[in-house]
Amino acid sequence: MKKRYLDCSEAELKALLSEATAEHEAFKALELSLDMSRGKPCKDQLSLSMGLLDKVTSHDNPIAEGNIDCRNYGGPDGIPEAKRLFAQILGCEEEKVIIGGSSSLNMMFDFIAQAMISGLGEEPWCKQGEIKFLCPSPGYDRHFAICEHFGIKMIPVAMDTDGPDIEEIERLVKDPSVKGMWCVPKYSNPQGITYSDDMVRRIANLKPAAKDFRIMWDNAYSIHLVSADDHLIDILAECKKAGNPSLVVEFASTAKVTFAGGGIACVAANKVNRELIRKRMSVQTICNDKINQLRHARMFPDFKSLESHMRHHAEILEPKFRMVLDMLNDRLGGLDILAWNHPNGGYFISVDTLPGCAKRVVELCKEAGVVLTSAGATYPYGNDPLDSNIRIAPSFPPVDELRQAMKIFTTAVKIATCEMLIEQGV
Amino acid sequence: MKKRYLDCSEAELKALLSEATAEHEAFKALELSLDMSRGKPCKDQLSLSMGLLDKVTSHDNPIAEGNIDCRNYGGPDGIPEAKRLFAQILGCEEEKVIIGGSSSLNMMFDFIAQAMISGLGEEPWCKQGEIKFLCPSPGYDRHFAICEHFGIKMIPVAMDTDGPDIEEIERLVKDPSVKGMWCVPKYSNPQGITYSDDMVRRIANLKPAAKDFRIMWDNAYSIHLVSADDHLIDILAECKKAGNPSLVVEFASTAKVTFAGGGIACVAANKVNRELIRKRMSVQTICNDKINQLRHARMFPDFKSLESHMRHHAEILEPKFRMVLDMLNDRLGGLDILAWNHPNGGYFISVDTLPGCAKRVVELCKEAGVVLTSAGATYPYGNDPLDSNIRIAPSFPPVDELRQAMKIFTTAVKIATCEMLIEQGV
Repeated sequence: MKKRYLDCSEAELKALLSEATAEHEAFKALELSLDMSRGKPCKDQLSLSMGLLDKVTSHDNPIAEGNIDCRNYGGPDGIPEAKRLFAQILGCEEEKVIIGGSSSLNMMFDFIAQAMISGLGEEPWCKQGEIKFLCPSPGYDRHFAICEHFGIKMIPVAMDTDGPDIEEIERLVKDPSVKGMWCVPKYSNPQGITYSDDMVRRIANLKPAAKDFRIMWDNAYSIHLVSADDHLIDILAECKKAGNPSLVVEFASTAKVTFAGGGIACVAANKVNRELIRKRMSVQTICNDKINQLRHARMFPDFKSLESHMRHHAEILEPKFRMVLDMLNDRLGGLDILAWNHPNGGYFISVDTLPGCAKRVVELCKEAGVVLTSAGATYPYGNDPLDSNIRIAPSFPPVDELRQAMKIFTTAVKIATCEMLIEQGV
Repeated sequence: MKKRYLDCSEAELKALLSEATAEHEAFKALELSLDMSRGKPCKDQLSLSMGLLDKVTSHDNPIAEGNIDCRNYGGPDGIPEAKRLFAQILGCEEEKVIIGGSSSLNMMFDFIAQAMISGLGEEPWCKQGEIKFLCPSPGYDRHFAICEHFGIKMIPVAMDTDGPDIEEIERLVKDPSVKGMWCVPKYSNPQGITYSDDMVRRIANLKPAAKDFRIMWDNAYSIHLVSADDHLIDILAECKKAGNPSLVVEFASTAKVTFAGGGIACVAANKVNRELIRKRMSVQTICNDKINQLRHARMFPDFKSLESHMRHHAEILEPKFRMVLDMLNDRLGGLDILAWNHPNGGYFISVDTLPGCAKRVVELCKEAGVVLTSAGATYPYGNDPLDSNIRIAPSFPPVDELRQAMKIFTTAVKIATCEMLIEQGV
């Protein structure tokens, strides 16, 4: 039976530290170079979509529904079949969808930029003094980077197992300078949490003081199961029912369905928001790449083909997630020095060290050639108040490398914990 | 010998009007539907690039130079071979190029948006009170739409045969609230004017009062000859020589090289501007579609292949431009009621009616089923002070239809001119 670190004497901790440090030195000598920092698909996953590249060749008809020539200007908000594809991915109405370029992050950035400069039916945000966004944390660092870029003050909100702390949110939205909130509602980044039906409904029923409050609903992983398909209801329909139709703007892309560097992206929203977006897009561009939209629509002519494709992704990802979880359990289980989640999908496993250890763990891993997402990155301003959360991205490395990386990681957790406990004189 | 309309008596004008009106009524009875409103490639032009769709299939290596997997995240500013392609298109140094998505207009919009919200090393434009842009006119309506969208006041500047009125520009840039200028330096939209070497150098040597003054150098037609290849020197090199390296930001795309709805776009700029752009792009997106970049680089492995491709475009466009010019000459030559240019390339023929006739001409054409760009569209705020300029876009319709459309157009010019002269009691 392993002894809990918190029950150890200083001498015992020093012995554990010495043992872990020796192991760490041996890892360093291997001069490895492993990257678990970003949610990047691996080569086997990319290979699943090679057929996409044959969907519109010189022998194929480049014409989309409605006689749209995908090679020419026109169709600024996308071809009908691409809208239908995303409506199925998001479980929303087809008419709600506008197709963009290849990046949903870009569409989120552009929406916030528009709110800043032109406003959302009210004064532009840049003319309203200090404005704020609610940031369920841990969350996605690139969301937070957008807020930071535009000088929007971020307010962290705690995450629970069924979504963010909704009571806190209900309280905070009474402040008219609070203009929005980031949400990754399914297989959240990084915790893999899926919002419960009740949570979605309470969010849809929020009564923010600001009329130009918008929830950025980044449904990045809606069909990205690993071991089980979580259930998420359609926020746009719930907002409509709640008499709050403009509250949410939803985003998605095929970056992790087909190619991370060559997918298609969309925004889905009610009429008011769509008109705001279309008005800006009509000035911003003539049209997006409809040929790539057509490729995708032909690759996934129905939802069944898409589901089957995503199961192949899951077959590749599941052993990787399992390896991470098994290694955590084998090497740290019962020690009470690390907590971790068991996500059913998405791209990440989120772990929490004892307070004050995360940065040191990431540093130790780096010394041994394992690159993790920076500690703190999952919090606004890169500031994890407990210095505890670390995001593990198991998708890219092969399973063998993951095993090695997790040995290094778990050893680093032991070292950082011992160091912290010794220093604190526990 | 035709009689000049300005020399006609009222009775003669009424006879001419009656004759033209009868012709117009006959055209209306044909119930035609012809579109000459936008610079849109025709089907034959699009067919030239079908090979592009076979450059990256499932049988091809999706890896770019530097071992970049084009299917995955990474390479935010583009693959090396795409940068090289645009460096050749623009005649600039390769290191100056950043690749974007499919639309150069989008890259221009984003650059102005960035200047508005974040500034260009100075206070954000949105915090500097009223700011202004110089708009050589007639010019491109979508440039003006961007200024209007952001509330940037536009100051028209006259165009001469070698570029805009540079003396007026030299005077205007002494105003620190003047923050930029739009230029289409080769085969300008709509006049087809190419800036002389002297003009480019004088622009490069401008000394604007505002440190955050930028010229938006939309080199949209750099290789888009129709009948002859005009000569344009590299503005970025000239700016460097002039000690003004940050003055110009240059844009281009392959929208009219390959597919209008599926090309690639770039910005080229000095280090200061590139760093500003890269900083924003790193927040805005993870990467653009590198697979499409790779397709383009493989389609045009050297400049020769690109030149040959553009000659095929010219072979399709030249008879269309000739038809427009021949019809103008045949039907309106010597009448002194319309002036027109003879561009060597680009997408447009620009005509000037007598003052006060352009709107009426466009209206008459529409009655007879010929859609032209709105009169005034080539001026800021859609306001052509003389109501004289009309942009003719001959690329899309087949030659036969163009002949018919030009009959309608020239008749409309006659009607509008007679009406105006009669009303003015000339």
